[in-house]
Amino acid sequence: MINVALFGFGRIGQMHASNLSKHKEIKILYVYEKLPHLNKQAKKLYNCRTENNYKKIFSDKKVDIVFISSPTNTHIRFIEEAMKNKKTIFCEKPLDLNINKIIKTLKKVKKIKPKIQLGFNRRYDPGHFNIKKDLDVNKIGKLEKIIITSRDPSPPSISYLRSSGGIFRDMMIHDFDLCRFYLGNDEIEQIHALTSSFEPFYKRINDHELAVVTMKSKRGVICVITNSRHCSFGYDQRVELFGKKGMLISGNKKENSTEFYNSGQTNSQKPFLNFFIERYEDAYNLQLKELISLHKNKIKSRSTFEDGYIALKLANAAYKSLKLKKTVKV
Amino acid sequence: MINVALFGFGRIGQMHASNLSKHKEIKILYVYEKLPHLNKQAKKLYNCRTENNYKKIFSDKKVDIVFISSPTNTHIRFIEEAMKNKKTIFCEKPLDLNINKIIKTLKKVKKIKPKIQLGFNRRYDPGHFNIKKDLDVNKIGKLEKIIITSRDPSPPSISYLRSSGGIFRDMMIHDFDLCRFYLGNDEIEQIHALTSSFEPFYKRINDHELAVVTMKSKRGVICVITNSRHCSFGYDQRVELFGKKGMLISGNKKENSTEFYNSGQTNSQKPFLNFFIERYEDAYNLQLKELISLHKNKIKSRSTFEDGYIALKLANAAYKSLKLKKTVKV
Amino acid sequence: MINVALFGFGRIGQMHASNLSKHKEIKILYVYEKLPHLNKQAKKLYNCRTENNYKKIFSDKKVDIVFISSPTNTHIRFIEEAMKNKKTIFCEKPLDLNINKIIKTLKKVKKIKPKIQLGFNRRYDPGHFNIKKDLDVNKIGKLEKIIITSRDPSPPSISYLRSSGGIFRDMMIHDFDLCRFYLGNDEIEQIHALTSSFEPFYKRINDHELAVVTMKSKRGVICVITNSRHCSFGYDQRVELFGKKGMLISGNKKENSTEFYNSGQTNSQKPFLNFFIERYEDAYNLQLKELISLHKNKIKSRSTFEDGYIALKLANAAYKSLKLKKTVKV
Amino acid sequence: MINVALFGFGRIGQMHASNLSKHKEIKILYVYEKLPHLNKQAKKLYNCRTENNYKKIFSDKKVDIVFISSPTNTHIRFIEEAMKNKKTIFCEKPLDLNINKIIKTLKKVKKIKPKIQLGFNRRYDPGHFNIKKDLDVNKIGKLEKIIITSRDPSPPSISYLRSSGGIFRDMMIHDFDLCRFYLGNDEIEQIHALTSSFEPFYKRINDHELAVVTMKSKRGVICVITNSRHCSFGYDQRVELFGKKGMLISGNKKENSTEFYNSGQTNSQKPFLNFFIERYEDAYNLQLKELISLHKNKIKSRSTFEDGYIALKLANAAYKSLKLKKTVKV
Repeated sequence: MINVALFGFGRIGQMHASNLSKHKEIKILYVYEKLPHLNKQAKKLYNCRTENNYKKIFSDKKVDIVFISSPTNTHIRFIEEAMKNKKTIFCEKPLDLNINKIIKTLKKVKKIKPKIQLGFNRRYDPGHFNIKKDLDVNKIGKLEKIIITSRDPSPPSISYLRSSGGIFRDMMIHDFDLCRFYLGNDEIEQIHALTSSFEPFYKRINDHELAVVTMKSKRGVICVITNSRHCSFGYDQRVELFGKKGMLISGNKKENSTEFYNSGQTNSQKPFLNFFIERYEDAYNLQLKELISLHKNKIKSRSTFEDGYIALKLANAAYKSLKLKKTVKV
Repeated sequence: MINVALFGFGRIGQMHASNLSKHKEIKILYVYEKLPHLNKQAKKLYNCRTENNYKKIFSDKKVDIVFISSPTNTHIRFIEEAMKNKKTIFCEKPLDLNINKIIKTLKKVKKIKPKIQLGFNRRYDPGHFNIKKDLDVNKIGKLEKIIITSRDPSPPSISYLRSSGGIFRDMMIHDFDLCRFYLGNDEIEQIHALTSSFEPFYKRINDHELAVVTMKSKRGVICVITNSRHCSFGYDQRVELFGKKGMLISGNKKENSTEFYNSGQTNSQKPFLNFFIERYEDAYNLQLKELISLHKNKIKSRSTFEDGYIALKLANAAYKSLKLKKTVKV
Repeated sequence: MINVALFGFGRIGQMHASNLSKHKEIKILYVYEKLPHLNKQAKKLYNCRTENNYKKIFSDKKVDIVFISSPTNTHIRFIEEAMKNKKTIFCEKPLDLNINKIIKTLKKVKKIKPKIQLGFNRRYDPGHFNIKKDLDVNKIGKLEKIIITSRDPSPPSISYLRSSGGIFRDMMIHDFDLCRFYLGNDEIEQIHALTSSFEPFYKRINDHELAVVTMKSKRGVICVITNSRHCSFGYDQRVELFGKKGMLISGNKKENSTEFYNSGQTNSQKPFLNFFIERYEDAYNLQLKELISLHKNKIKSRSTFEDGYIALKLANAAYKSLKLKKTVKV
Repeated sequence: MINVALFGFGRIGQMHASNLSKHKEIKILYVYEKLPHLNKQAKKLYNCRTENNYKKIFSDKKVDIVFISSPTNTHIRFIEEAMKNKKTIFCEKPLDLNINKIIKTLKKVKKIKPKIQLGFNRRYDPGHFNIKKDLDVNKIGKLEKIIITSRDPSPPSISYLRSSGGIFRDMMIHDFDLCRFYLGNDEIEQIHALTSSFEPFYKRINDHELAVVTMKSKRGVICVITNSRHCSFGYDQRVELFGKKGMLISGNKKENSTEFYNSGQTNSQKPFLNFFIERYEDAYNLQLKELISLHKNKIKSRSTFEDGYIALKLANAAYKSLKLKKTVKV
């Protein structure tokens, strides 16, 4: 059995706990969570230990994997501790909202080379990954454009939004990373951002309802990302890769493939899967599978600490572009 | 210019007149129609002659093509006249409701070999024809099953139904022919029919609302045809060819390719094109193009007198099966 | 914990064992399997008891659910034992190949009223079930036609085919049952069957490669089922419900929703999920959930012993129709 | 009959001539074309007059409609002449490459109020127009985003490209106008442009292979347009309208709706209609219908001189943004 210490038992932490618990090779040994009622709940559901002094968890030799889904500002600290104690690490995105903290840790990461996997779940989605494989075997020739549409069904709570770092760091960070996934060893060079808000509260909390970013890579690939904090018809997640010789699309998922026809319409289908837990269920499982494999073997993680760093750098560049109303070099 | 004499100016005749008139090489010289008000209307719209003695039309040397869309019981007589006068012939389906009349004429057709094209418009539909071409170049390997769905948006008038010859001779005749189109030089050997009616008037007029036929060819190909006299969501016209190595589908047509998404549904599209004039518009034009080519050159007609004969034979066999509640040899 | 005794650890039994083992409330207490190497394998994988005298298993008070996926000819015997011992029962289809054995047991079932669920997994498929619910809330008005397409990706082994009872009892039995699911309290009254085989071995073993059945219910609903023992493009599973006011379709499932476009094609998608284990994964889980609920509570099973009986009756009637080349009363 | 004088008999002029000639109410009276061989061809095909002194055509009282599809730099001159002579006018896009010339004429247009229709064919496309109507009846609530994808199957000749005014004035001008069509009485306020070229010759002729523009309207609607000068899978023409309560998509058109399935793929469909003449065939006909109606009645043209002016203004702003690497006010 592989022993996991799970940090953070909030919404996303609970989802990870549930996934971890279903895996035959994994035992949740510890849950670290400051809120007492969540602490209790974790204990009850997963029959695991809880411990207030997190250092004790890191120093426990029995812990194999440190699974970090605690608040963003704790990520770097826990990664550092885990590196010191030679644990295999999973860490949710974003790494931190302060790029300088990340840069400091990046240096250590480059030296120590820990086994670490970032929470960029979309890289593991069967659809999104499939078109990456098709791209890599040259099915569409040279890549020329990446177009990503990502719309959440509804915004998170205002309190969450206030501390989230904003739409580019909290939401579009996934899409920045996904662009880089398809770009391979090419890199984004310039970026431009535009936003809009219809609901008045977004302005009050200094966030945006809609955002669109256009980017260009060293080799000339154009990337377009459009985000929306709401979407009446479900969680809209689409990727389009346009190449010299063809196009690949990874589209939305529905609960079932039923159609309805009547006098007013044909082909009417059910709404999309509602949100990330359902939409990316397979992705989370495949990512966990890679994490276990990463722990056991010498393989390359599909989403690295450096990927987390560059995604935030792009988010920051987007804010700079927005402020200066300029195309910005990354 | 090619001079056409059009026989019959009812609903289908009017559609043909309109198509003929748009063709640059064609002049409608005569319209033969017994109803005075339609006669007058034809004259006004197409600036053509009308003539009560049809023999005079046939003997007019200037007439190149005889276009027969008059009532079913006149078809054979007009074909015979046209053959005598060496005209190129188009004739609407069905050839007649009396198979013996057809057999007698078939003998002459085989001897005289007139240039004749039957009104099996579906053989000319770009979609239905495309999968025929794909089948013939072996895209799906050996053909094993033909499944045809054909549903009219709403039934014709009761008076039309009373004299139509019934669902198998009036409606399914198209689908019998279409099966044979895909079978190529294979032929149907056995047939079974089943019908049902929910609206009570069908029983009163001895017709059926729904009909399904299963057939088997000499080589073992299974054919399934399902018909309905009504369809709330438009004119439903689908063909599915199943082979050893794949499947081909020719589907429905919509006026445009728009989609609508909201909280209750995704991908909702507009209804199908309403009825045969719209759905088979391209088919009618391509069929006319072939007719002109048939008139000018030595080519093989895609739908022959014999095709008309065998389609009716299959319709009659369906009635026999229905009566005997048996699988019937054709 | 609910204790399960699993009878039969062949291909389907192994799948059920895997599903049962993932369920939190379930413990596999016994596996009964005659082949020693499978016996051993079960013990190793699920840490369960094995027992050669099946009567001991039935008499063990700790056993809550008897899960029967052993060879068909043992089903009735195990159901009888389970009834005697007041166990909750799951039994794979078909109940037996001998209808008289079933009829005898049916009488006891009607008296004893055991908690029993038949293995008609398709009734639990989210898509197929969704259109049942839509039908029941009158989305398409009065039901008029049921059209089911069911094609296996490739045939089972010849040895399996020899003892399977033939395509109607082994494969189409699912589709007979599915028709009845949509018919609700209406019942099939007449049936006609047609088959064809291209691969020569089917004739040698007295089975069929392709089969099509047309049926009519008391209320006049027409049902069409087409089966194929092979399908080059995957496991083809489609249901179409046609009603007075609309149509509902439950279509195929793909692993992901990606599309590919190049100079020769658009919208090209990946093949369907390969076979029943993948295609009906959700269905198996939902069926198991119902079984647990059936064990705990007073609910109605969605697939009953009587459903198993009537499905076989329809399969037998199909063979009779085939032999007599007639429409047959059920 | 309505008499038309057609100016320009190049590729697009020939297409218009063919459409005009099929219309029952229209007679092509003159064709004005400087190249002698085209002149001759026009005369032969349409039995019309040709005239070297264009002033004589404008002063001919019999001319009802002036149809301008001559080279861009003649458009304004011919419009001015037509206005003087009170003709109904059709003019191809763009109006001119020099915005000052347009502004001067715009003043006269505002005073004289001629019956004029610009060649923005996409406003008349059944699909694109259908979602405009759905938008206007509030099917998706308040409009928030417009996303247009427009890709030509292959680039025009280099000589054409050299004098075309560049991708924004020649190609994207259609999409600028289409955005404004959906915006209704809202207007674009700011714009940002990004381009890329993979084929080296684009740089030599100072044009671009790919272009993407992001814009924002007064009311906050975000518009994204992506263009490509090549597209391996046909003429890719898509519009997506995203609103508070839903989404509308107008998609691509195919010649037929056939699908192909084999061991490697499902749902494979034929390529899109190749280029604008086929894709926008319906649009051209509906636009002509409006032109005739405009000539006869007091109706509002769906695409005005001012629309032509603003589309060019947006194209110029795109070039300015590209040069300054800035978001630019329009």
